[in-house]
Amino acid sequence: MNCSIAQALEIVGEWWTLLIVREALLFGASRFGEFQEAIGIAENILAERLRKLTDRGIFERIPSDEDRRRSEYHLTEMGRALLPVLLVLMQWGDRWIAGTRCAPVKILEKATRAEVPVIRLESRRGVPLRAEDIVLVAGPGATAETKARIRKLDA
Amino acid sequence: MNCSIAQALEIVGEWWTLLIVREALLFGASRFGEFQEAIGIAENILAERLRKLTDRGIFERIPSDEDRRRSEYHLTEMGRALLPVLLVLMQWGDRWIAGTRCAPVKILEKATRAEVPVIRLESRRGVPLRAEDIVLVAGPGATAETKARIRKLDA
Repeated sequence: MNCSIAQALEIVGEWWTLLIVREALLFGASRFGEFQEAIGIAENILAERLRKLTDRGIFERIPSDEDRRRSEYHLTEMGRALLPVLLVLMQWGDRWIAGTRCAPVKILEKATRAEVPVIRLESRRGVPLRAEDIVLVAGPGATAETKARIRKLDA
Repeated sequence: MNCSIAQALEIVGEWWTLLIVREALLFGASRFGEFQEAIGIAENILAERLRKLTDRGIFERIPSDEDRRRSEYHLTEMGRALLPVLLVLMQWGDRWIAGTRCAPVKILEKATRAEVPVIRLESRRGVPLRAEDIVLVAGPGATAETKARIRKLDA
């Protein structure tokens, strides 16, 4: 599908995938057993997900320093760039499911210990934007089909 | 799991779900057939997803004005609040999969026609934050297990 949301979900949209990335990015997991213990995921599914995430460039598989027969999974720059995806989901869950006053975890800026603000969609001048404030236009990679959909939207 | 990311994924993490929300939020779909045509999803799966999303408060099901025997699915405020989730995924896909110069779609601010900036994790003073710049602390809703995990992280 000619859509970056669909393409992103092809990689990170499978069940368990973002929880595996969460463990690596927020809890520093790198070994198979660490992911397994933290997420409680079946061994075969975890192996399949880590293989796919490594194939698609989210993790890099490297031999462990402690035991060269074992592997460690390290997030690549592409994988670490998922941080805003995780936190925007966390903040949505805090607001709409747990309730902000029942948030399980808070994220602080290390340097100041101030809580990290809610991630918002904003204009260049910092005005918060909602769906009714934005408009879709064809990008440089739009296919004929995408262009037709956007024209239909304008009509 | 005592984690807002996991709780958010319980609702929106299933295959197809965020594409259904995308259709409603960015393309204005509201009728069963519109979702089906745009996403190319099997009827039974779409029906199941829409039912679950309605149960969980993402959509509201209301009788169609044109034909009272039919239903329309309208996003609730909770559903519309998924806009940053969709766009952060889109921007990640643009950057890391399609390539920014091949982005299928661009999002403009309606009022100014300026492109909407990339959504970033920032400190209160607007400094971009990466995973190494943040720290997790137990929130007001942390269970004993979550507190133990965070203590382990500090150690």
